[in-house]
Amino acid sequence: MADISERDPLVLFMPSGKRGRFPVGTQVLEAARQLGVYVESVCGGRATCGRCQVSVQEGNFAKHGITSSDDHLSPVGPKEERYDRVRGLPAGRRLSCSAQILGDLVIDVPQDTVINAQVVRKAADERVFDRNPAIRMCYVEVEEPDMEKPLGDLDRLKVAIATDWHFDEIEVDFHLIPEVQKILRKGEWKVTAAIHHDRGGLPARLVALYPGLKNEAYGIACDIGSTTIAMHLSSLLSGRTVASSGASNPQIRFGEDLMSRVSYVMMNPDGREAMTLAVRETLNGLIDKVCAEGGISRADILDSVFVGNPIMHHLFLGIDPTELGGAPFALAVSGAVEVKSSEIGLPMNEGTRTYILPCIAGHVGADAAAATLSEGPHRQDEMMLMVDIGTNAEIVLGNSTRVVAASSPTGPAFEGAEISSGQRAAPGAIERVRIDPVTLEPRFRVIGVEPWSDEQGFAEAASSVGVTGICGSGIIEVIAEMYLAGIISEDGVVDGSLAERSTRILPNGRTFSYLVHEGQQSITVTQNDVRAIQLAKAALYAGVKLLLDKQGVDHVDRIGLAGAFGTFIDPKYAMVLGLIPDCDLDKVKAVGNAAGTGARMCLLNRDYRREIEETVTRIEKIETALESKFQEHFVAAMALPNKVDAFPHLAAVVTLPEKKAGGGDTGDGGRRRRRSRD
Amino acid sequence: MADISERDPLVLFMPSGKRGRFPVGTQVLEAARQLGVYVESVCGGRATCGRCQVSVQEGNFAKHGITSSDDHLSPVGPKEERYDRVRGLPAGRRLSCSAQILGDLVIDVPQDTVINAQVVRKAADERVFDRNPAIRMCYVEVEEPDMEKPLGDLDRLKVAIATDWHFDEIEVDFHLIPEVQKILRKGEWKVTAAIHHDRGGLPARLVALYPGLKNEAYGIACDIGSTTIAMHLSSLLSGRTVASSGASNPQIRFGEDLMSRVSYVMMNPDGREAMTLAVRETLNGLIDKVCAEGGISRADILDSVFVGNPIMHHLFLGIDPTELGGAPFALAVSGAVEVKSSEIGLPMNEGTRTYILPCIAGHVGADAAAATLSEGPHRQDEMMLMVDIGTNAEIVLGNSTRVVAASSPTGPAFEGAEISSGQRAAPGAIERVRIDPVTLEPRFRVIGVEPWSDEQGFAEAASSVGVTGICGSGIIEVIAEMYLAGIISEDGVVDGSLAERSTRILPNGRTFSYLVHEGQQSITVTQNDVRAIQLAKAALYAGVKLLLDKQGVDHVDRIGLAGAFGTFIDPKYAMVLGLIPDCDLDKVKAVGNAAGTGARMCLLNRDYRREIEETVTRIEKIETALESKFQEHFVAAMALPNKVDAFPHLAAVVTLPEKKAGGGDTGDGGRRRRRSRD
Repeated sequence: MADISERDPLVLFMPSGKRGRFPVGTQVLEAARQLGVYVESVCGGRATCGRCQVSVQEGNFAKHGITSSDDHLSPVGPKEERYDRVRGLPAGRRLSCSAQILGDLVIDVPQDTVINAQVVRKAADERVFDRNPAIRMCYVEVEEPDMEKPLGDLDRLKVAIATDWHFDEIEVDFHLIPEVQKILRKGEWKVTAAIHHDRGGLPARLVALYPGLKNEAYGIACDIGSTTIAMHLSSLLSGRTVASSGASNPQIRFGEDLMSRVSYVMMNPDGREAMTLAVRETLNGLIDKVCAEGGISRADILDSVFVGNPIMHHLFLGIDPTELGGAPFALAVSGAVEVKSSEIGLPMNEGTRTYILPCIAGHVGADAAAATLSEGPHRQDEMMLMVDIGTNAEIVLGNSTRVVAASSPTGPAFEGAEISSGQRAAPGAIERVRIDPVTLEPRFRVIGVEPWSDEQGFAEAASSVGVTGICGSGIIEVIAEMYLAGIISEDGVVDGSLAERSTRILPNGRTFSYLVHEGQQSITVTQNDVRAIQLAKAALYAGVKLLLDKQGVDHVDRIGLAGAFGTFIDPKYAMVLGLIPDCDLDKVKAVGNAAGTGARMCLLNRDYRREIEETVTRIEKIETALESKFQEHFVAAMALPNKVDAFPHLAAVVTLPEKKAGGGDTGDGGRRRRRSRD
Repeated sequence: MADISERDPLVLFMPSGKRGRFPVGTQVLEAARQLGVYVESVCGGRATCGRCQVSVQEGNFAKHGITSSDDHLSPVGPKEERYDRVRGLPAGRRLSCSAQILGDLVIDVPQDTVINAQVVRKAADERVFDRNPAIRMCYVEVEEPDMEKPLGDLDRLKVAIATDWHFDEIEVDFHLIPEVQKILRKGEWKVTAAIHHDRGGLPARLVALYPGLKNEAYGIACDIGSTTIAMHLSSLLSGRTVASSGASNPQIRFGEDLMSRVSYVMMNPDGREAMTLAVRETLNGLIDKVCAEGGISRADILDSVFVGNPIMHHLFLGIDPTELGGAPFALAVSGAVEVKSSEIGLPMNEGTRTYILPCIAGHVGADAAAATLSEGPHRQDEMMLMVDIGTNAEIVLGNSTRVVAASSPTGPAFEGAEISSGQRAAPGAIERVRIDPVTLEPRFRVIGVEPWSDEQGFAEAASSVGVTGICGSGIIEVIAEMYLAGIISEDGVVDGSLAERSTRILPNGRTFSYLVHEGQQSITVTQNDVRAIQLAKAALYAGVKLLLDKQGVDHVDRIGLAGAFGTFIDPKYAMVLGLIPDCDLDKVKAVGNAAGTGARMCLLNRDYRREIEETVTRIEKIETALESKFQEHFVAAMALPNKVDAFPHLAAVVTLPEKKAGGGDTGDGGRRRRRSRD
């Protein structure tokens, strides 16, 4: 970009917003490359692959000082015309390898370049990312052998790749060496090389080779959860998610929660191997499924990214997770792992690689790292809290200056275990609850049933699925509503005196329960249920508080709730319970399978791999068990929403029961005083 | 080495001859490293492995200006004393990691450090090389896991390796990842890492990991010849050859010579695979054999180097050699190949790598490259000719300025094929022949029989093996002697007129034969035999001439004869025949299995890999078939020793038959003139 003057055309690329001035006659593709704007190209500027399509936004963009027009690109030349004739170019589209810059331009880089009428499918998450995949498809024309120049066929292929694509000194996957001559001759010395180049500084590798022009390459991104596994198949060239699928983690049969799986390994000599095989088998099934849905073959998959919590991570890789079962919770490996997919029993293309994100700590895995990457607390100035609630809650708090993380042993209460009427989120489970503060009568909504329980048609609709229990989000709501209705005190005690006012309050030994539904099976919330949720949410909140202490702040600006639980709970009720700290409710968002999104980002852009690897080394891990203040925070967090912390944002939206005593009190003394005033 | 003054001690390391000044107090090991003198150390200076032993040469070395004395090393300290007590240090030996420089020194770096009373075995080739193997054994002490520092076990191992051994950002063989925790705990956080680091610029790799101190590592070097395979097992730490073994190439059953093997592949669908499997099976047998002889397990082999001609190279790697069967003789790969040994069916340690030297051209393989490396024409100022004679003769000619290479289609005559009484070099074969120029009576020596044929006891000794034929070296001698005795003319015509003088000259159709031996089977040299040798030697010599032309020189300073044939032929007779060009006979040397030696050099010193890779790119390949002057040289070389070239060095030692015409004459005209004067 030497000798660029203010009179040279100004070009703005969208959506990246990158801009620069270029001499008249510069190829649009070249300009994009110079600015670091990712525009795919397989054929290396021969106007045959059609991957480098762009369009011009016409008009006067005053903010940018650009008047952009189609005329500011060179007219369609013979090569581009031929491509349009043979393959067809959508209206308004140009090939950036052919079009030259003649004047100021706003160039749109479409994120959905449709090549060969490839089917477009809806993916769960339609976020579009800057792309820079580890796999590049590089079309080259190789010199034919010549007795006077004894360089081997492979060696001349390397020269062509170095000359046309600037990958110098590439390494070659051994399985290709016996194939090279055949492929070169089949393609009549024109071939497409799949080059895997993940890390700057490391050599690029030739991992696959195709005769002629190969205009496709795919990758999979996968989140191995302890309960469910989610897999996405994406085009590495267009970035589009082509297919998605999910399955239950088959390891469930060895143990429902993580620690029981670790125990299984410790008790059974072949336990580790059995669980590794089980998860890989399911993954292979999922690969087949997404390939079938995407209409491709396994050999078309050239890259893959996996995430999972530390125990899933270890079992997936064939590592004994026993060390993760007890202090000091030593990970076998915390850094990112790169391996040939075939080495871990996932045969796709023979040259396919698998990238596994780094783990943050023994309890905070590659899934939390991926969620961090997806939600990006480290990329923003606001102090963001990210919570992924499972048997362990992973908590990440931070901003661009500093990120801290912890895991809190919340136990399985949020998943409905340890709750008398608890159940999984499945048809028949109560998921929404409202309690009339005057009558104490509840109304609720059941999964699989459209009307609320007090609406017309409920009984009929519910008769097929029944009302069988309360799921995780339901238990949050019902206890929060019980608190708001005055049925339980801020200390979580069910007020037995209300039994005089309402038949919903039932004696249950020395304590009282709240009757939510009377049917084939009575669904009640017992005092023990309330205690279980209090313990779980106090553990989570105490972890959050330790992170707030570490950051030296007393509030968060933004909260992301990851995972399925996060998607279904109502942030307001979570806040009423004091499960999450006070925050502007508009800034509390369910972020879905953030771990899966992070995996997909790493699949489509290797820069994200470097970003999370670097970020993980900076994330400070708090071991909650070692922190002296954990106990104090935990006790304060047993109260609803909290004994000491104010919830001003929440109070502005919800009428919270009046605090019975000064916020500063803690412990039994306070409780006794409050009791005496009840 | 900052602030070094002339008053600092001067230290000379032998046998490398590297020298430098170092401040008083510098560790000898550190001084060696700074000078690039290879001194092995596994324990990283902890005085426990004993690998870094050196001794002081006492005395006044006037030439170097050094008075060297034991006193110029620091006294034995407690760590060194402990090593001596526990393991025993040979008299005069010091540990260079403990001894410090106090004054001027001549330090001997022994090439035979005997550790743990390891058995010393004689190897075929006792040349000692500077060592710098691709495998380094690195003992480290790893930090134990700590809840506050969540780095994984493998990641802390990497930190220790980077800190103590300066291998930063190592890659890790995947098979180790599930093993790391177990090994670290077994070694109580003290382990020895086997680091494979071949190429500067590329990351080092952790390929094996052992609990505690592992003080051994081995490698194999192997030359896959089309007839025989030779393998050496060497200690990568001491450089010593621990065991050697050989076997016939089992591919012989698919075809005796190279082209018949290529044909076999072309004619049989599974031919390539069958030959690949056969050679790998034999290699595995040889690995077992050298391991048994060396008293080690296959898992102790951490590195390996293979060479072979292009067709052996391709078949070994599983590459179809069909393209090598015809012009343009395209190699699938000419550059060096690196592969995990397990990927090519040679399981040793799971992390073992195999390095295969580059090929020079379609007819000049990795074996010729290895021979070049071994004999080093490119390292010397003298113009050196290296010849490896087989079915094809590979010819390399050059010096430090320029190296050229060719292969000449000599055919199998030198191996005894196409010769009426020809046979392999085996008991019963005539290998030496002298002919009395007056009586024309021969005397000869037979393989397996001590006395010459005219000596006492010959008949008795020969009765057991018989006199069955003439081997390659024998045919060279008998034809040369026939020429010296005047039985054949310089044009190779058996002089029938001599039948009047001697019953040894027998009519044979329209030509004459020479009777070497009359027994159960008569052994004669026919006119056709002479022609076959003339054709073969003319092809070889014409190739040499093309290389001389290319170099613009008219003589060579030094000749190396490689391979078994080169070991057994008498250079004088080869020169009389004009098989090799004129040269001082003292400078013609059989260089043995130079290819195997080159492989061993690459095993023990990765610098040699870079040297040959770089050299091969500079070697100019002459395709004899494409050179217009080949025919002319060939015709001139049909004469004995040559129609046009003078052999002054030879003439000074051997009385050559007088030339019948001026040396400048060529072609039939000259021949006719000489005939007319007979």
